[in-house]
Amino acid sequence: MSHKYVYYFGGSSADGDSKMKTLLGGKGANLAEMARIGLPVPAGFTLTTEICTYFYEHGRTYPPELRAQVNESVAKMEKEMGAKLGDPKNPLLVSCRSGARDSMPGMMDTVLNIGLTEATLKGLIAKTGNERFAWDTYRRFVQMYGDVVLGLKPQSKTEIDPFEKIMEELKHEKGVNEDNQLTVSHLQELVARFKKAVKDRTGQDFPEDAHEQMWGAIGAVFGSWMNDRAIVYRRQYGIPHEWGTAANICSMVFGNMGDDCCTGVAFTRDPANGENVFYGEYLTNAQGEDVVAGIRTPKKIAELQLEMPEVYAQLDKVRGTLETHYKDVQDIEFTVQNHKLWMLQTRNGKRTGFAAVRIAVDMVDEGLIDWKTAISKNRIPPDDLNQLLQPLFDAKAKNQAVKEGNMLAKGINAGPGAATGRIKFFAEDAEKYAQQYGKHTDHRIILVRRETSPEDIRGMQAADGILTAFGGASSHAALVSRQMGKVCIVGCSKLQIDYDKMTLTVGDKVLNDGDWISIDGFTGEVIAGKLATQPSEVVQVLIEKSLKPGKSSVFKQFEKVMKWADKVRKLKIRTNADQPNQAAQAVAFGAEGIGLCRTEHMFFEHLAEMREMILANSLEARKAALEKLLPFQRNDFVGLFETMNGLPVTIRTLDPPLHEFLPNDAKGQEEMAREMGVSVEEIERRVKALHEFNPMLGFRGCRLGIVFPEITEMQSRAIIEAACIVKKKGIEVNPEIMIPLVGFKKELDLQAALVNSTAEKVFAEQGIRLDYLVGTMIELPRAAMAAAEIAQTAQFFSFGTNDLTQTGLGMSRDDYGSFITQYTELDVVKKDPFQVIDFEGIGKLMEIGVEGGRKTKKDLKIGICGEHGGEPDSVKFCHKIGLDYVSCSPFRVPVAKLAAAQAVLEEKAAKEKAKAAKDAAKAAK
Amino acid sequence: MSHKYVYYFGGSSADGDSKMKTLLGGKGANLAEMARIGLPVPAGFTLTTEICTYFYEHGRTYPPELRAQVNESVAKMEKEMGAKLGDPKNPLLVSCRSGARDSMPGMMDTVLNIGLTEATLKGLIAKTGNERFAWDTYRRFVQMYGDVVLGLKPQSKTEIDPFEKIMEELKHEKGVNEDNQLTVSHLQELVARFKKAVKDRTGQDFPEDAHEQMWGAIGAVFGSWMNDRAIVYRRQYGIPHEWGTAANICSMVFGNMGDDCCTGVAFTRDPANGENVFYGEYLTNAQGEDVVAGIRTPKKIAELQLEMPEVYAQLDKVRGTLETHYKDVQDIEFTVQNHKLWMLQTRNGKRTGFAAVRIAVDMVDEGLIDWKTAISKNRIPPDDLNQLLQPLFDAKAKNQAVKEGNMLAKGINAGPGAATGRIKFFAEDAEKYAQQYGKHTDHRIILVRRETSPEDIRGMQAADGILTAFGGASSHAALVSRQMGKVCIVGCSKLQIDYDKMTLTVGDKVLNDGDWISIDGFTGEVIAGKLATQPSEVVQVLIEKSLKPGKSSVFKQFEKVMKWADKVRKLKIRTNADQPNQAAQAVAFGAEGIGLCRTEHMFFEHLAEMREMILANSLEARKAALEKLLPFQRNDFVGLFETMNGLPVTIRTLDPPLHEFLPNDAKGQEEMAREMGVSVEEIERRVKALHEFNPMLGFRGCRLGIVFPEITEMQSRAIIEAACIVKKKGIEVNPEIMIPLVGFKKELDLQAALVNSTAEKVFAEQGIRLDYLVGTMIELPRAAMAAAEIAQTAQFFSFGTNDLTQTGLGMSRDDYGSFITQYTELDVVKKDPFQVIDFEGIGKLMEIGVEGGRKTKKDLKIGICGEHGGEPDSVKFCHKIGLDYVSCSPFRVPVAKLAAAQAVLEEKAAKEKAKAAKDAAKAAK
Repeated sequence: MSHKYVYYFGGSSADGDSKMKTLLGGKGANLAEMARIGLPVPAGFTLTTEICTYFYEHGRTYPPELRAQVNESVAKMEKEMGAKLGDPKNPLLVSCRSGARDSMPGMMDTVLNIGLTEATLKGLIAKTGNERFAWDTYRRFVQMYGDVVLGLKPQSKTEIDPFEKIMEELKHEKGVNEDNQLTVSHLQELVARFKKAVKDRTGQDFPEDAHEQMWGAIGAVFGSWMNDRAIVYRRQYGIPHEWGTAANICSMVFGNMGDDCCTGVAFTRDPANGENVFYGEYLTNAQGEDVVAGIRTPKKIAELQLEMPEVYAQLDKVRGTLETHYKDVQDIEFTVQNHKLWMLQTRNGKRTGFAAVRIAVDMVDEGLIDWKTAISKNRIPPDDLNQLLQPLFDAKAKNQAVKEGNMLAKGINAGPGAATGRIKFFAEDAEKYAQQYGKHTDHRIILVRRETSPEDIRGMQAADGILTAFGGASSHAALVSRQMGKVCIVGCSKLQIDYDKMTLTVGDKVLNDGDWISIDGFTGEVIAGKLATQPSEVVQVLIEKSLKPGKSSVFKQFEKVMKWADKVRKLKIRTNADQPNQAAQAVAFGAEGIGLCRTEHMFFEHLAEMREMILANSLEARKAALEKLLPFQRNDFVGLFETMNGLPVTIRTLDPPLHEFLPNDAKGQEEMAREMGVSVEEIERRVKALHEFNPMLGFRGCRLGIVFPEITEMQSRAIIEAACIVKKKGIEVNPEIMIPLVGFKKELDLQAALVNSTAEKVFAEQGIRLDYLVGTMIELPRAAMAAAEIAQTAQFFSFGTNDLTQTGLGMSRDDYGSFITQYTELDVVKKDPFQVIDFEGIGKLMEIGVEGGRKTKKDLKIGICGEHGGEPDSVKFCHKIGLDYVSCSPFRVPVAKLAAAQAVLEEKAAKEKAKAAKDAAKAAK
Repeated sequence: MSHKYVYYFGGSSADGDSKMKTLLGGKGANLAEMARIGLPVPAGFTLTTEICTYFYEHGRTYPPELRAQVNESVAKMEKEMGAKLGDPKNPLLVSCRSGARDSMPGMMDTVLNIGLTEATLKGLIAKTGNERFAWDTYRRFVQMYGDVVLGLKPQSKTEIDPFEKIMEELKHEKGVNEDNQLTVSHLQELVARFKKAVKDRTGQDFPEDAHEQMWGAIGAVFGSWMNDRAIVYRRQYGIPHEWGTAANICSMVFGNMGDDCCTGVAFTRDPANGENVFYGEYLTNAQGEDVVAGIRTPKKIAELQLEMPEVYAQLDKVRGTLETHYKDVQDIEFTVQNHKLWMLQTRNGKRTGFAAVRIAVDMVDEGLIDWKTAISKNRIPPDDLNQLLQPLFDAKAKNQAVKEGNMLAKGINAGPGAATGRIKFFAEDAEKYAQQYGKHTDHRIILVRRETSPEDIRGMQAADGILTAFGGASSHAALVSRQMGKVCIVGCSKLQIDYDKMTLTVGDKVLNDGDWISIDGFTGEVIAGKLATQPSEVVQVLIEKSLKPGKSSVFKQFEKVMKWADKVRKLKIRTNADQPNQAAQAVAFGAEGIGLCRTEHMFFEHLAEMREMILANSLEARKAALEKLLPFQRNDFVGLFETMNGLPVTIRTLDPPLHEFLPNDAKGQEEMAREMGVSVEEIERRVKALHEFNPMLGFRGCRLGIVFPEITEMQSRAIIEAACIVKKKGIEVNPEIMIPLVGFKKELDLQAALVNSTAEKVFAEQGIRLDYLVGTMIELPRAAMAAAEIAQTAQFFSFGTNDLTQTGLGMSRDDYGSFITQYTELDVVKKDPFQVIDFEGIGKLMEIGVEGGRKTKKDLKIGICGEHGGEPDSVKFCHKIGLDYVSCSPFRVPVAKLAAAQAVLEEKAAKEKAKAAKDAAKAAK
């Protein structure tokens, strides 16, 4: 038998099932599954992702055996649907849709109504008795096929779509305003003009053979895997380009054959807040694309109960069947043709962070899933937790806005959260603006559109919030925003958007490009101007302790997820904090210690004394200045130790180059001279002497403490004295002193000896002893190389992945802007290495470091305190290579916890899978 | 039997021999060896280096069994010498001298005349019948013991030596000018005052027990292993601090008992130029220290033949015996006491590079050694070859100086070469000056001293040349200069040096601190002012081809050494060159290709076009500017390819950040604006846009070629077009295109694809094809990590160890000045990692890189083109890890060749040694 490339589904049977997503793509696998469990699916078949791989490896051709397999499936489909592709008497129409392993909504191409020709058109008229419907369908087909398959697209950014242009011209000629006012003869003329345009541009006649049309569409769908927006999308979501898409040929059913027809999309639960309600929209007498395109604002699903009660009941039953079967929220597409319900698609519904948490928790309560499933990355991507911690608009500020007449309108709350930004009307503008200004608070963006389309995806990425005048909760804007975790309001029909004038008008209020606007994704409110925010519910309960949480509050759900994560994770989670209030926040979020306290922040608060130290030109003068800094440092540490109440506190000795503490500009230097009573020349001289060509690679880190041991001495004294003070109060204290930028064992030897001798002095003075550790950061490639040696002295390691990435890649975070965009677009780097650990490069250095360290000390405590410590994939990597803890900013603690838990579950699953495969292989022998 | 800590020598026997240097130190082992081969050695014994180790590990105490072993050896020595330590009637006096495994001349302490007390003094007078001699000896002993053992030293840099001060006072009181005018009673008073000074400072009486004196001296000698100058010395010469020194107790013989006594030092051949003549100096009626101290200028050894013909004949015979026995030049110390010759020391003589080469070559000719021994690192340290390439003073310039009266004086030519620099009279000043100005041509230093002492070692390091008024060819200044390879003239007695006024006066010519002076180490000539130089003989013959070498010329010797090296080395030697004349020089020195041609140097020569390219704000404009640069680049490459005549030429694409091509200052920017016809603002804007915080880690290397592919395209075109032109002329051509700063495989993929497609275009245009390679630099830690992947695309690797060191250590070469001095002093780094590869860190990255690359391509060609490629230890490391070639600057090619040969020989020796040890272990079983 030849290799199977085509999988049939229809009636109540199917060749494939939902487990075969890799081969059939999500859409194909789920159509097969729905057919298997007896749901009404129009017959069809799936061309596998292997064909896509073949297609790109063989100059866009197909495997030779494909044609016969397709023909066989077409025959089965024709039999099931009782009609024939290309039959002038009884024509079968089909769609051709992409379907990748992971859903990539709207990124690839679709062709509907394939099989309509001059000949079959007559059959369709005869069959439906609806000439206008048939001609309108033909018009739509020629337009879609001409665009997608034959490539009749605008040839520049400014050109209007050629088909739209022809239609506008004809409507103008005929004095017609709306599409539905076009008569049969108008439509006939339109089709003729469309075909002529195709001929003019391509030199080819429009294909009049149904099978030829089908193969053309298949080629276009596979071809769309490599279009620009699909590539961008995959890059953002980490989908490998190698996966390929499947293509699905599906019998057409029509939601636009009359008022007993409709088409809709729905979620089995609310994807914005997670509530267990049937949530969806439909349009009567319409094709499915109309709902998603967002051009007409559709009706709520509840209305279908009134309009077509039987169909609604059937659909609601399907909703239950699907959730019980899939055990997850489903995002479905359906069409009702002459009162008959057809299911066109089901897939796991994308949801906001709020919804993800609520749905996961609810489903455990409902007994649908267990708690380990609930906290898996498919249910709650760790980053989603972040949404629950984001600020909301301040209630008072909102009231004030109402008073001042700034409350503009209310739309559909499609993506929760509060976003304030400058209006940008075009995705391209938004993208450029973001490139120019970066993520600065003063330059946040709200993308304001009539509707969005897949072309807008980069602009949406650049924006903090999306606001559309049209479209419902299932529109493109809503779907994509939810997935990106962006605040989103759609269908805000009061907004008048003029793209030419670049204005947004509501009543007599006119906002321009660049004006401030605020959108509340919880309530759907659109407010002119910049609005103040207040902390989220979780923050109010946990951090501010200003709110008592209700039983089913977001907080309670969040708390449950955190408890589950804590049950299973092995990594400890610490926080990067240098002030008691930050530390307290982190502890409230469950931090188990401080992984990085940067002492330099404390110095910036006592700049005068610090500068005195830097200007000192003798050891005595430097010591005198340090003497003044000592009580401040000690005081700061006392506060931290008290807050952390016995949890380990890792304090890093002075790290940044000294010139960071001096003013660089003439004005600042004059001021400093005046304040310190020295000459400007003296300060200029010192600034010049400290100037460095590459400060990142210069006189900083432990190099400071080695050249000026008195600095480390003062800092050690401050730490140990503070610890003694706190211990004397009866509070447990666990200081861990961390030496930065160590590359050579001897550096750590020297600094550790200094810390230890200072500690002994303090113990003698204070008449009390306590335990403390001296360890080092591993943030230079050399440190990773020499880890075994360094571990002879170090009592712990902490990976400083920021600097390790900078040095390991030879890439300065301050300077990589000039090429990183191209690097991402050209796939040189898969992800920004300063956000996600570069596993193959920096990760390998880390593995070498862990191996070396543990070779010397089997149980050496190893953590990470770079900013990667709060990024889920990096956290999982840290688990994999055997770190003891990760440390991240306070607000990332929940994210890190969940990622750490998932790391354990995923590792276990992978082991079980490997074991099963091994057992199966054994059994096969 | 207890562990043997003491080794006796005397008569014609010895416990030890010359192979036991590790245990007995060089001096002890050779005293034992000389006794064994029947040379007249005063009896004595050696306390092993193990005692030194024990001493430092046990709080400066000795192994308990030591005392008995010492007593036993003292008894044997007393028997041999027919006198007893501490015997008032027949006293034996001894010396106590340090002796490390490697000679560290003058760095540690020595005590002479041990055993003299008030009681034994009388015995000495009786025995010698020379009261004045006895009292003078006692005076010397109390002074030396008081200084070295009892620590009566100046307490600050400005204080005079306390003993000298007392002596000056007494001489003043007594109206005595010279030491030898002091009478017995003067000396008695002096001793009394010395002892009082000791008592006053230390509270202790001067020891009157001979054994107590001996043990005090032993403690001082072991203690001096850790004094400051010994540590500095070891650091410079890479001697491990763990080795420790031995201590030698040796019967005293006296060169100062009258005019039938003398003392001298000699070399069996001339250590300055290598000539096979007996070369040495002596002082009649003097102690050995007087010769080395350089206070009296001694007589040439030839005069001894006239003064004491029998002794001279005996000594000359010893010279022959020693050379035949040791098969190397010996540096000996001897004393003649009442016409009897005693050998006090022999060791391999330190020599200049000129002498090293000549001696090695001569000894092969003489059949004393084979050629492999001749080129070993002990015979010719590779860096020594450098001396043979250094410029000499230009003959015309010297004639001119004579005419103008600038020829000041002529001294002893103790270190060959030509040095011009600014006069510094104090070592400390020289050191500070060098720290301030670095190695800039305008700030070279000639250290001008009456004599030098071990305290001056850092200042000597800082200087380019050393000039002394006193001392002979064996004085401290001469010895140390030769070892350091510094130009040196000693014993230039016409110089009047006034330390207080800081002047150097010759006749009516007065030179001050900071004035220019030139010294010719070949001729001994001292010239006021800055003198022009001309190339060395080797360079004149090989490079300039302006000289035909004589049969025994330096060139012929050099040539022989190079041929021997070529016979055995496995590493290929390439050169870093970007201009035909540089390349030609390197080829003359035997370079086998270009390992690094930096294309940016070519751009700097066409700055206008380069700047036009950088200012271009469209692809078209950039291409137009590149179009102008193309012919220049092509032309440069044609020249290089022609010069290299078929040898491989590795060309690196543009590497430095673009801002390096723009002026940074306002004036430069204005000028550029005028020249280019654009506004200053435009240029300011561009400079600002290109500014980077850490240019080393910024937009440079292949990042440029990826963001601006048209640059790589132009460069590839220039290279391939040039290659085609040259090939068409019938000249072989082997271009290797090297992509810099690659960290990710994809970077190389992109750049290699561009190079290859450009090459194909050029081949089609030119109607000719040729082979070329595309490879990459491995200069980022990530590249080492990803070497296996990168090697899938790379056709060769070249380690860029400059950048690899900067990134791997997180240390900028431009900025490390602020801490590297302390780092060296504190032993954080053993050697400057930018001079010698940091084997444990950067070396490990290299090993990982080699392993990865060869895993993918077994025979991958791998080289190094960082500046380490010309440093001997680094070259040996490159051999060890299996590189194919090293590349270095043209003048380093001979050094690299010799180091590469030594690497092979040393590897073989190590293998043979390991095998022998294994066989021995097997045999023992």
